[in-house]
Amino acid sequence: MNTPTLSLRHNHFLNGGATATSTILLPRSTSSPFRVRMSLQETGPSVSIVGITGAVGQEFLSVLSDRNFPYRSLKLLASKRSAGKSMKFENRDYTIEELTEDSFEGIDIALFSAGGSISKKFGPLAAQKGTIVVDNSSAFRMDENIPLVIPEVNPEAMAHVKLGSGKGALIANPNCSTIICLMAVTPLHRRAKVKRMVVRTYQAASGAGAAAMEELVLEGKEPTCNIFNQQYAFNLFSHNAPVQPNGYNEEEMKLVKETRKIWNDMDVKVTATCIRVPVMRAHAESVNLQFENPVDEDTARDILKNAPGVVVVNDRASNRFPTPLEVSHKDDVAVGRVRRDVSQDGDYGLDIFVCGDQIRKGAALNAIQIAEMLL
Amino acid sequence: MNTPTLSLRHNHFLNGGATATSTILLPRSTSSPFRVRMSLQETGPSVSIVGITGAVGQEFLSVLSDRNFPYRSLKLLASKRSAGKSMKFENRDYTIEELTEDSFEGIDIALFSAGGSISKKFGPLAAQKGTIVVDNSSAFRMDENIPLVIPEVNPEAMAHVKLGSGKGALIANPNCSTIICLMAVTPLHRRAKVKRMVVRTYQAASGAGAAAMEELVLEGKEPTCNIFNQQYAFNLFSHNAPVQPNGYNEEEMKLVKETRKIWNDMDVKVTATCIRVPVMRAHAESVNLQFENPVDEDTARDILKNAPGVVVVNDRASNRFPTPLEVSHKDDVAVGRVRRDVSQDGDYGLDIFVCGDQIRKGAALNAIQIAEMLL
Repeated sequence: MNTPTLSLRHNHFLNGGATATSTILLPRSTSSPFRVRMSLQETGPSVSIVGITGAVGQEFLSVLSDRNFPYRSLKLLASKRSAGKSMKFENRDYTIEELTEDSFEGIDIALFSAGGSISKKFGPLAAQKGTIVVDNSSAFRMDENIPLVIPEVNPEAMAHVKLGSGKGALIANPNCSTIICLMAVTPLHRRAKVKRMVVRTYQAASGAGAAAMEELVLEGKEPTCNIFNQQYAFNLFSHNAPVQPNGYNEEEMKLVKETRKIWNDMDVKVTATCIRVPVMRAHAESVNLQFENPVDEDTARDILKNAPGVVVVNDRASNRFPTPLEVSHKDDVAVGRVRRDVSQDGDYGLDIFVCGDQIRKGAALNAIQIAEMLL
Repeated sequence: MNTPTLSLRHNHFLNGGATATSTILLPRSTSSPFRVRMSLQETGPSVSIVGITGAVGQEFLSVLSDRNFPYRSLKLLASKRSAGKSMKFENRDYTIEELTEDSFEGIDIALFSAGGSISKKFGPLAAQKGTIVVDNSSAFRMDENIPLVIPEVNPEAMAHVKLGSGKGALIANPNCSTIICLMAVTPLHRRAKVKRMVVRTYQAASGAGAAAMEELVLEGKEPTCNIFNQQYAFNLFSHNAPVQPNGYNEEEMKLVKETRKIWNDMDVKVTATCIRVPVMRAHAESVNLQFENPVDEDTARDILKNAPGVVVVNDRASNRFPTPLEVSHKDDVAVGRVRRDVSQDGDYGLDIFVCGDQIRKGAALNAIQIAEMLL
């Protein structure tokens, strides 16, 4: 197992932080995230990662390795501060390069996760040079000319983007909360058409980066308020995204707007409340659904059991349902608490509870699945 | 300040557990919970507390003292295991007595918080002997002959119960989640009539007792699963109450059924999802409301500002809204995120976020307010 030299500290938190000492209680991926490939690829696209030192940047490597993503070459980009540092990945040595306007010469696919302003500056530049950019920031998500894609949900939105055509493109990765929500809800929406959806999130520290995960662990330390404006440990609070004039914060409005765009359904009604909870790296979401057409709860569970990228955890007798800890480092989104909503008539309403790894399916995995669709 | 000898360990957790070392970050009640009264009462009812060693039992003392509740005598009851232990309260020494069938001779008011089976056995016995029992368990809540009371919401339900009449009675304290929810929602309900309510809870450890609060704090320890069947630290999970055949757990159905009884409105539609989060002693609840009649968000905020026992924390510019930590040890329920629901037409929908101390207004304070109404 080859661990990138840079990521030791990050990985401590990404792998569960204070709970990482427990091997029984903390489910971990059984595959090594940095195993050695049988043979280095001679074919496949040239790939670059923008923002390699961040939590999602590191997870890109993990996912590329786990999925044996074919690449001809790999370029690791970061800010000037990290440039020149070396790291090992899949038994090769890499030197982190500074992101500049010339970074994308000869790059087929660039995976961006370095914040919206970097994406806005360098994303279009890369696309002009023929690179297909998969961008994890919010910079382009609501641009009507740029596809916003969850591969299991709306692959058709990027059908016009072709690798090897010489034409670059921008593709946006949805926000983590949207991806996790729609992975579970879309299969039901296809069956019974969602009319209205009330989403409440229980969001992990990871969405605010490694420093937020660190701020959550006390282990005898005094609580700090460096990342958030209030104590995080043993507390929870309304998501720190700025609040808009309508009283919703930006995180909530992403769920409202991105759902409409991804489903290509401007009529669907969505309300959301996004709450930051003291959990490490997986989000939970409680979703109340009102449908146009009836769908009973047994049918709903069957639909979810057969949905790609979804696993149903719904053991009522032993009271086991999805938890953030159990989906951490997992690819699949877990759904449970599937039941007929007692506040609605007949089979027109369901209540479900969803958990998904925020860094993996909520960010890095979804982006790399988009890249895989280009191959 | 006189701290009861028995409660030192409990109080460590009740006062914030691992975070108690921070004076800046952890808001604390400014009044000492165990201050010495100016003079000991000569009049007032004889009071007994059943379950004095539990978290709520201890909070009863704190609230009696804070509110200067008049009592002629105080009897502290617990199981055989704790009988004989001594504790100091308001500068007097008490010996804990074993709860028996004879415990209620001459007792005017008994505050019960020792679990449903103790209440079922001893509550009716006490009432027969002329004691007015305020019961914090779920034993009698749905009994149609027993009032279920939040003093700010439905004081009329206990109008027939009279202290000094010689007639005993049972009065039920609602479940903590119901109290906290209805403290915020009832003032809006009175104005615009709630048609349907979608509640999602973020519930603290305290609802499962002091041992659950202890299980939440790692401080270098390995996670344990003594109280819950899965890791609690840095995790969250569906509430541990048994799941019923309809897929709802008992905690959720309490919100559904108790709301109907307290509002005396069998038509109100309620759905709930109850989640246990790694927070110490205050619950948060996200409540989506659909109304019969319009109520705009400015009016809603004004109504809430004027509601007894409610404080509005709704600072959009600095992103400060209610948190469990800030309401801990406080009497008032805090409401924020008050906004028009973008998924509903016109002014017929609101989204709000509520936090309340689970042990205080969710249990001990509400029970003692009920007792105060008898005076």
